Amino acid sequence: MPRSSHSVNPIQWHDGRLRLLDQRLLPAEECYVDCESAAAVVEAIRAMIVRGAPAIGIAGAYGMVFAARAAWARSGQGWRDAWQADSHALRGARPTAVNLAWAVDRMAQAARDIVGDPSAPLLALAQQLHADDLAANHRMGELGAVLIDPASTVITHCNAGALATAGHGTALGVIRDAYASGRIARVFATETRPWLQGARLTAWELVRDGIPVRLITDSSAAHVMRAEGVSWLIVGADRVAANGDVANKIGTYGLALLARAHGARVMVVAPLSTFDMATPDGAAINIEERAGEEITTIGGHRYAPAEVSAYNPVFDVTPAVLVDVLVTEAGVIERPDRARIAALLQSR
Amino acid sequence: MPRSSHSVNPIQWHDGRLRLLDQRLLPAEECYVDCESAAAVVEAIRAMIVRGAPAIGIAGAYGMVFAARAAWARSGQGWRDAWQADSHALRGARPTAVNLAWAVDRMAQAARDIVGDPSAPLLALAQQLHADDLAANHRMGELGAVLIDPASTVITHCNAGALATAGHGTALGVIRDAYASGRIARVFATETRPWLQGARLTAWELVRDGIPVRLITDSSAAHVMRAEGVSWLIVGADRVAANGDVANKIGTYGLALLARAHGARVMVVAPLSTFDMATPDGAAINIEERAGEEITTIGGHRYAPAEVSAYNPVFDVTPAVLVDVLVTEAGVIERPDRARIAALLQSR
Repeated sequence: MPRSSHSVNPIQWHDGRLRLLDQRLLPAEECYVDCESAAAVVEAIRAMIVRGAPAIGIAGAYGMVFAARAAWARSGQGWRDAWQADSHALRGARPTAVNLAWAVDRMAQAARDIVGDPSAPLLALAQQLHADDLAANHRMGELGAVLIDPASTVITHCNAGALATAGHGTALGVIRDAYASGRIARVFATETRPWLQGARLTAWELVRDGIPVRLITDSSAAHVMRAEGVSWLIVGADRVAANGDVANKIGTYGLALLARAHGARVMVVAPLSTFDMATPDGAAINIEERAGEEITTIGGHRYAPAEVSAYNPVFDVTPAVLVDVLVTEAGVIERPDRARIAALLQSR
Repeated sequence: MPRSSHSVNPIQWHDGRLRLLDQRLLPAEECYVDCESAAAVVEAIRAMIVRGAPAIGIAGAYGMVFAARAAWARSGQGWRDAWQADSHALRGARPTAVNLAWAVDRMAQAARDIVGDPSAPLLALAQQLHADDLAANHRMGELGAVLIDPASTVITHCNAGALATAGHGTALGVIRDAYASGRIARVFATETRPWLQGARLTAWELVRDGIPVRLITDSSAAHVMRAEGVSWLIVGADRVAANGDVANKIGTYGLALLARAHGARVMVVAPLSTFDMATPDGAAINIEERAGEEITTIGGHRYAPAEVSAYNPVFDVTPAVLVDVLVTEAGVIERPDRARIAALLQSR
């Protein structure tokens, strides 16, 4: 087992319940929400109590445990028919990150061979996926960190940290390891409108770890890249298509273009559970659009006029040509394309 | 006199007082603040009750009227010495927009030839500058609109509207005129963190005028440019250097780079009062940095952890090479550079 993760445990299995750190309330409050049913997990994912592609995958796996437990109690040997509705709802709770579908599918696949009460074997698998994600993050942290020159300045977007995963983080895992080895001197974190994951979550994680971080508005990135000598943009991913196109938090695509214009390199840190070989390229990725009120209203106060319409796509697609390095737990892919990605996956 | 400006009058002279629409409270409340002294005008500019480069220039001119009135009451014929402190404070109330220094200097220059009580002649000049700005906006609106193809989709940043000027607006003046003549079909407005001038002010102005507008987060711009066929980025300016470099709201530089990457053209709409021939290029422009709390706190609620430091530059510099067209009341400059700008100014 990898070392423990800076004491941030956003997802915990405890006494037959899934305990989720409510990320909507951070950093002001550290509250936990207990889920005991698949429906509660679906709602926790939709409402963004839990967010981040790997984290919602793990939550989805535990959701499948609840689904199986309830189906077994209701239908006994017929439980595999009885859990279909829950399984479908979990799989569709959020559309863009593929980790959720990946985890649900892994659980469903394992279910085929189970004899008798499925609760214990499915729980064991969910806990395995949970542990695997943490281990993958530590491995990616090591692999990504060594690519960075000493005392670098980097920029990250949204939160691809311990809170978005089983712990340690994808992009923040690399940043943690690179800071520990003197490769990163300081981090600029974008606030990441509309949910402010950068201001609320990334800043919180980095401050807790004593990593020098300055928070900036999203639109300050170009000015900061030009004036502050940023050498890397380091981000996570919600889905990596077969050709290397990357869906991630809205704004990532623009930051990647700006990085290219300023000679900064772009590192995408994503476990293999984020790769979707069934999606040929970015154009085939379903981009979630959320309510306009997430933009027009902040903290319950409406800032924009009542009559105005807001357009709120919450992800965008960065084409593979803008990605300098893809870091996975199975290895690093420079200048990713269809062939290099296929080769890495086949080497597993 | 040009036609009246859509009933938005952010700056009014009324009964010996300067009445300013408090832009911090829009769109929820339309409140006016009365100023009767230079110190009150300085504070209104610093606190962003009035904002927008041309608008703070006009407010500064009226501030000079108060300064002269008080100096004359205090010191009679010695009023020119007595108003120096007020003049200095007004000139420095905000550092980046040059229109404020320009207006204060115009008033000071005119003061040299005044015999006796300066109040009436200086008030007449302030009102002339006020009227000139409105006329310039209408002229720029016409000149900019004809450059746009029918039924175009455009994007604007911050608020360069009636609220930022004497009325009609610079960037929004062009958008108003282009919409009226069928050249613009729809507008994307960035919310413009941290002050949300786009969400609060631009959306409010465009909705009032019935111009189709969709509000987006600042970081959605690249996605929108790629997916929605944006043909122009249209913005105002706080200062245009002699070589055509443009200081404007933080984020403009990044948007200009993204526009270039997507084949959208960049139009900067700025009256001649925004041009500063004493500033050779963008590197010489003083970029105002405001308190980090403008980022970490929204509507009195703190979102970021207490320990995190925020970096809040509120302007950036777009190099002239990224500007396709500079629109002024004296004419349009394509691909602006030092020679073309000098030629236009000499032709006046």
